Amino acid sequence: MNPFTDQTTQQVHQIGERELISRLSRWLGDVSPPPPRGIGDDAAELGVSVEKLIATKDALVYSKHFDDDTDPALVGAKLLKRNLSDLAAMGAAPLHALLACLLPPSTSLSWLRGFFSGLRSCASEYGVQLVGGDISSSIKDLAFTLTLLGEAPETSLTRKTGHAGDTIWVTGDLGGSILGKHLSFRPRLAEGKWLANSPSVSSGMDLSDGLATDLIHLCPESCQVELDTDAIPISKDAQTLSQKSLKPPIWHALTDGEDYELLFTVRSEDNSPEFIQEWAAQFETKATCIGKVITQRSAQEATIHYHGSYAPTREENGYEHFR
Amino acid sequence: MNPFTDQTTQQVHQIGERELISRLSRWLGDVSPPPPRGIGDDAAELGVSVEKLIATKDALVYSKHFDDDTDPALVGAKLLKRNLSDLAAMGAAPLHALLACLLPPSTSLSWLRGFFSGLRSCASEYGVQLVGGDISSSIKDLAFTLTLLGEAPETSLTRKTGHAGDTIWVTGDLGGSILGKHLSFRPRLAEGKWLANSPSVSSGMDLSDGLATDLIHLCPESCQVELDTDAIPISKDAQTLSQKSLKPPIWHALTDGEDYELLFTVRSEDNSPEFIQEWAAQFETKATCIGKVITQRSAQEATIHYHGSYAPTREENGYEHFR
Repeated sequence: MNPFTDQTTQQVHQIGERELISRLSRWLGDVSPPPPRGIGDDAAELGVSVEKLIATKDALVYSKHFDDDTDPALVGAKLLKRNLSDLAAMGAAPLHALLACLLPPSTSLSWLRGFFSGLRSCASEYGVQLVGGDISSSIKDLAFTLTLLGEAPETSLTRKTGHAGDTIWVTGDLGGSILGKHLSFRPRLAEGKWLANSPSVSSGMDLSDGLATDLIHLCPESCQVELDTDAIPISKDAQTLSQKSLKPPIWHALTDGEDYELLFTVRSEDNSPEFIQEWAAQFETKATCIGKVITQRSAQEATIHYHGSYAPTREENGYEHFR
Repeated sequence: MNPFTDQTTQQVHQIGERELISRLSRWLGDVSPPPPRGIGDDAAELGVSVEKLIATKDALVYSKHFDDDTDPALVGAKLLKRNLSDLAAMGAAPLHALLACLLPPSTSLSWLRGFFSGLRSCASEYGVQLVGGDISSSIKDLAFTLTLLGEAPETSLTRKTGHAGDTIWVTGDLGGSILGKHLSFRPRLAEGKWLANSPSVSSGMDLSDGLATDLIHLCPESCQVELDTDAIPISKDAQTLSQKSLKPPIWHALTDGEDYELLFTVRSEDNSPEFIQEWAAQFETKATCIGKVITQRSAQEATIHYHGSYAPTREENGYEHFR
């Protein structure tokens, strides 16, 4: 569905800001509490006292992250789920969200209603309250940014805190998310919480830019990573996509963005069959060991050493937003 | 300064996301703490335990809120100050901010550096830590959204909580902010905190859309407001602007946006000379009584009854973002 319309009566700029905010509040229903805890005051007073607060912020832009083919309800849900995945990556639990909308004058009201219905369902499912935000008119870009607040676990899962010898793990299957998973994924909140609480786990993050790129961000200072390309769990969609792209499926698993799986490291001393047994007792979600953190051999930057039958001719790079 | 450049080496899309984030962190210096409390992890863990959290979100869009004539450092500062004014309106104290940037490919790196230097100075001045955010590329719109978190006072200043008989007050002088005050204003944080703590004050908000529009938002349910147009404090800039616009200065004071002053109500029983004496002992900022909350005479919507020598021919409306 195209988010813009030529029918002036259906355009957002026809109804004025006050009426628009009143419609948004109605569309959001019970996930939008009354002021001062929700929309309607200068700021939102949050009705919780949290030991350790955690915050993240993510955006969706028309033609970059969604297009005319995307169901607006899925766009609304995806905006929240991207942020939920960031909290999952730290092991945190979601609480409150603030939304900013950038709307060109011709934005269609029925597209917006769809967007908000998806956002509402998703917020309701994950127990998130939409407490405030901002609406601005833009020239051309339709974009949304969402800030998600949550409660941190006792020890948050962080990047770069692994050590040489730790093994590298990933949840689920990788690659080809453009065929559907970039919209249908479920943020790994329960898994993230469990990993943050496990003393065996030394670092973690979510996969959003592609395994090869994200691994570099996970890699601790003065270390490098060894990646066993034969161990990487490849999704069916990566295989399907490979028939069109004429790239091998492993290429998609390494470089495709938006997997929204968790990437984490397990301390060398805990890297035992018990760890995977404990995991399997908790979750149906698959966890696969794909490599190891190693000591850096020279003064160069964090690098991936590829092992296995796939030999990349150049260093694989994940999605770079500005190139 | 124009935020875009044709010189490809000076364009933001040339340097890639990782390098851009590393520059932003450098530009922000000590207002950007290291991860996991700042930029660099999936989410930011906030190192505070706050009794009552408060949150607000506001945006700035090129050609709507700033243009080629605006110093980029003032744009960066204004983004934060708009949000600080929202916290001031509730009587809250600022703590942490998250920033989302929407950047067209041709955004100039030197303009961005200017923007971040202004944001940094302002954050430093108000003790705000920039703990995270998001960067996305857009097609055409250059826009920023900022979420500001703070600590709420014991009782927040809220809208619509006044009563019939309460007097209406405003800080500073109104109108003509487009001539400079929309950039140079100082958020009324100390004043807002004092008002929130005063048992005499029954409601409050900041003026962003123009007095006439904002008064409607302050007006309690089943009430109306009486406004004495002769009492409204008119700024020098409103008088200057009036010579060009050929509208009377009072028209600018009523309808111009971006005053960033505080509008509040004082309980009828406390509306005594003592209140203004106490205020004057605390602040150099002027506070002026401009009207009264009255009982609604009929079932109609919140309405302003104008008194004084200026007789608006129609109901004055403040800035409507989507018209």
